[in-house]
Amino acid sequence: MEESATISKKAAKKAEAKAKKEALKEQRAAERLAASVGAVKLDHDDPAKDRYGRATPTSPPVFSSDAQEVNLRSLGEEHDGKTVILRAWLQNSRAQSAKMAFVELREEGSWTIQGIVVATAETSPEAPHVVSRPMVKWVGGITPESFVVVEAKVQRPVEPVKSCRVSMFELLVTRCFTLAPAPALLGMTLATANRPIVDFNDEETNAPGEGEKDADDGGVPAATMLTHLDNIAMHKRAPVQQAIADIRVEMKHLFRSYLRDRGFKEFEPPCLIGAASEGGSNVFRLPYFTKEAFLAQSPQFYKQIEIAGGRKRVFSIGPVFRAENSNTPRHMTEFTGLDLEMEIRNDYNEVLLMLEGVLLHMFRQIQERCAAEIEVVRSVYPSEEILLPEPGKEVRLSFAEAQQLLREEGPAEFRNVRDDEDMSTPQEKALGAVVREKFNTDFYVIDKFPDTARPFYAKVDPASKPSSEGVRATNAFDFFLRGQEILSGGQRINDPDELEERIRAKGIDPASPGIEGYVDIFRQVGVPPHGGGGIGLDRIVAWFLGLPSVHLAAYYPRTPKRLSP
Amino acid sequence: MEESATISKKAAKKAEAKAKKEALKEQRAAERLAASVGAVKLDHDDPAKDRYGRATPTSPPVFSSDAQEVNLRSLGEEHDGKTVILRAWLQNSRAQSAKMAFVELREEGSWTIQGIVVATAETSPEAPHVVSRPMVKWVGGITPESFVVVEAKVQRPVEPVKSCRVSMFELLVTRCFTLAPAPALLGMTLATANRPIVDFNDEETNAPGEGEKDADDGGVPAATMLTHLDNIAMHKRAPVQQAIADIRVEMKHLFRSYLRDRGFKEFEPPCLIGAASEGGSNVFRLPYFTKEAFLAQSPQFYKQIEIAGGRKRVFSIGPVFRAENSNTPRHMTEFTGLDLEMEIRNDYNEVLLMLEGVLLHMFRQIQERCAAEIEVVRSVYPSEEILLPEPGKEVRLSFAEAQQLLREEGPAEFRNVRDDEDMSTPQEKALGAVVREKFNTDFYVIDKFPDTARPFYAKVDPASKPSSEGVRATNAFDFFLRGQEILSGGQRINDPDELEERIRAKGIDPASPGIEGYVDIFRQVGVPPHGGGGIGLDRIVAWFLGLPSVHLAAYYPRTPKRLSP
Repeated sequence: MEESATISKKAAKKAEAKAKKEALKEQRAAERLAASVGAVKLDHDDPAKDRYGRATPTSPPVFSSDAQEVNLRSLGEEHDGKTVILRAWLQNSRAQSAKMAFVELREEGSWTIQGIVVATAETSPEAPHVVSRPMVKWVGGITPESFVVVEAKVQRPVEPVKSCRVSMFELLVTRCFTLAPAPALLGMTLATANRPIVDFNDEETNAPGEGEKDADDGGVPAATMLTHLDNIAMHKRAPVQQAIADIRVEMKHLFRSYLRDRGFKEFEPPCLIGAASEGGSNVFRLPYFTKEAFLAQSPQFYKQIEIAGGRKRVFSIGPVFRAENSNTPRHMTEFTGLDLEMEIRNDYNEVLLMLEGVLLHMFRQIQERCAAEIEVVRSVYPSEEILLPEPGKEVRLSFAEAQQLLREEGPAEFRNVRDDEDMSTPQEKALGAVVREKFNTDFYVIDKFPDTARPFYAKVDPASKPSSEGVRATNAFDFFLRGQEILSGGQRINDPDELEERIRAKGIDPASPGIEGYVDIFRQVGVPPHGGGGIGLDRIVAWFLGLPSVHLAAYYPRTPKRLSP
Repeated sequence: MEESATISKKAAKKAEAKAKKEALKEQRAAERLAASVGAVKLDHDDPAKDRYGRATPTSPPVFSSDAQEVNLRSLGEEHDGKTVILRAWLQNSRAQSAKMAFVELREEGSWTIQGIVVATAETSPEAPHVVSRPMVKWVGGITPESFVVVEAKVQRPVEPVKSCRVSMFELLVTRCFTLAPAPALLGMTLATANRPIVDFNDEETNAPGEGEKDADDGGVPAATMLTHLDNIAMHKRAPVQQAIADIRVEMKHLFRSYLRDRGFKEFEPPCLIGAASEGGSNVFRLPYFTKEAFLAQSPQFYKQIEIAGGRKRVFSIGPVFRAENSNTPRHMTEFTGLDLEMEIRNDYNEVLLMLEGVLLHMFRQIQERCAAEIEVVRSVYPSEEILLPEPGKEVRLSFAEAQQLLREEGPAEFRNVRDDEDMSTPQEKALGAVVREKFNTDFYVIDKFPDTARPFYAKVDPASKPSSEGVRATNAFDFFLRGQEILSGGQRINDPDELEERIRAKGIDPASPGIEGYVDIFRQVGVPPHGGGGIGLDRIVAWFLGLPSVHLAAYYPRTPKRLSP
């Protein structure tokens, strides 16, 4: 009974959603029809009739020959008084009177400018173009989020336009065409899209809008992640999402350019693999012609083949997959991995320093290059400025030192943490607070993890002494940002016998599918000492910005409950 | 009967392969044991005993304090007479006498240098380091493809060493340690790995080595793709594969830097999607928790969402998947797509010119930057120098013009090709020959494809007149290299009604899963006019270099029969 009630409730919701959708569709068809009829109905006696309207391939927009295309980002003194063409999203339109309308135009994320449309008499020296009353009315009625192209004269406003990013100029609009009209009823407004998301628990059984809260910010309601994803284009248009995406682009670029300058070669590991390399748990499986295939959980194996194959230093940037049924703000089933692997000359610290170098370079450069974007993000998701160590003052603790710190200066509950057991997430967070307090940094390294906390391929430190339980330290480390792990790395075993011994010690059968092929590479050819690390791009973007969920840093977050759009 | 015979043959082959593998494993274990015993047996009275041997974490190599690490690529006059440290693959070793041995050392793909080891008396001014006869013997016996580190004096050889890329210097080796010894019996030698592959039909039922041919090149046998992939590390160490990989790295880099300089923002489309966007054929499906997921066949939909979401210009580089059971040198099930999408201001030719610009930039720069690598590839896979159009002389034909050219100047069999039917692969190749002859270029564009040859989202040219069968030209084009298609692109429909009409005209149900969500985006918000294109990275590398198979351009080729390594 209980179950069938749930089912019929679900079915009802589904039917309701469908009906709603159909209604919306019809409404929009009607709107479009009205718009096109409106276009036909344009007053043929209107002297401005060629200066506005819906542009189509058969009636393209026409501009003055001296008008120049501009971007808001590069608008400057040299444009003052000039006639320009701007393609932008119309964010707001408002008819002030029959003779005057205001529009707010947005371009490239968060660049906004005020436009005014003023009805003129027949051509006059001050306003050589004819703007008619019907044109003012039409522009004032353009639906928000339509894509328009305007011709306008750049001028200084009476006083700076505080509500716009470009505050020292405004546009006196003389032509305006819609290239892509937005519907009158948006699934989510831009203002809502730019409010903090109130619920990341993307339950598809929720009805749209459910869980949304009343606003505490000028009456603008906030929406759930579900509403955001269902209105993906509006979600992406929000300045906060544009800024996050811009920062993500730069993070990736900085990772790549830093490594390229240091002799690293990019390569692409496969996504489709023939055997589950990490024991087969949390792996997606799929039918592959007559066989079975798996989706790669990490490029680990392939990075190492590149080293075996004669590359000195490699990196890859690409998707990795985890079939983990975790519905938390920290997890996704598909995310972007930044991975590197390199020959070790003398010491695995070469790897540690390379990874520390690239990450600090990325973070410092982002603070500098993306200061405006960080500010946009903080205006929606407040966070503290990230503390980075000064050059030469990087914090690198051994695992044992970190545990001692936690025992001595952490919360009482961690007074008995051990040096031979992995840290829990609450321990990590507590340690992050201790390190910030003591060393004034949100970024630090913990090295020499116990072998119990590491996969079989981690190199045991030859100099380490076994604990009473036989646990030994490894040449492996994690990096942390604001108390959250962002990178795992270390030296890999490159001797096949040592590797096989560790595989057995971990209770894994060396003859199991993914494992045997892995060890074989080290038997087929000699492989030099090497090490590397892997970073989750989504996580470093999210934790760097102090976002409440990694899903905000992804372009199309994939979770156990969400595969669309 | 027939079938069971095949099965038992297969089983026998499998058992044989397994036995062979086991034997190899045992042999290698014995070799390693012998090597370690040999190391133990080093003569403790040998005055050079600390200058050579197997380096391990507990007995690391030791060098002179004045020795400097070098790369062969940057070896120059300033190193002449200096003591250097080089980490490299030992490609060959040969004891000339009890007093002298030669080695060939390789680094970074194809950089090779000759090393000589000469037994000296106790320290003398000319040879201040002691090299003993046991050391000469030991170095002369190092197995090829071991990874070694040597300390050596850089000197000028008596005459240039023609067999090495670094011919004007040689290394007088004074210390030599193996960091990763190769087994005595390699699954494939480097010489074989660097010969042209003889059979790309990777039938896993073939026994290893089957199909291999006798050499026509100094007695070095060539191997099949199967043997290459089974010996992936050796395959990758071959200078030809290193050169191909280097060219691929640069292609990708050039694509990215060109677009970045022009305001394109990188983004990552998802691989896991909730609905098959292109009708559901040739798509990989997988169980996804309680649902079903698909692997993306192209980033098309997501590129367009980015434009809808307020980005002006985007590009992506990432894997795409095709579940196509095609076993040809042109096909893979996973490959790397280079994709871009951009707002159109006035005309879709903006897209065409951007794509033409980026590809010509890539090809011209590769010719310049990678001249040495291209030569290495050509020494194994001969090809003609690619002909590129001079700036301002790019060849852009309409589909109708191309068909006319083929009718008038192509082979007799194509005398009746039509303007309203897609070209076949043989037609494309024939046209490539005609264009090369007539316009002196291997790179050209064919524009205005008929709508019958294009997907539903291709924009029909508003000015085109329907043919007698109602076929119309589209604002869509293909790019060709040596008569093979390397890019598809064009303007996309951005009006939802027009889009739905085209979907119906193509016989697709607009309510089908992948399609409905696609059209919905255009209804939810206005989307500006836009267009773009997609390039297969593997294909442009392969066809640019005139390789016999696209599999040679991939790092880990995926075919219906191959998922490993």
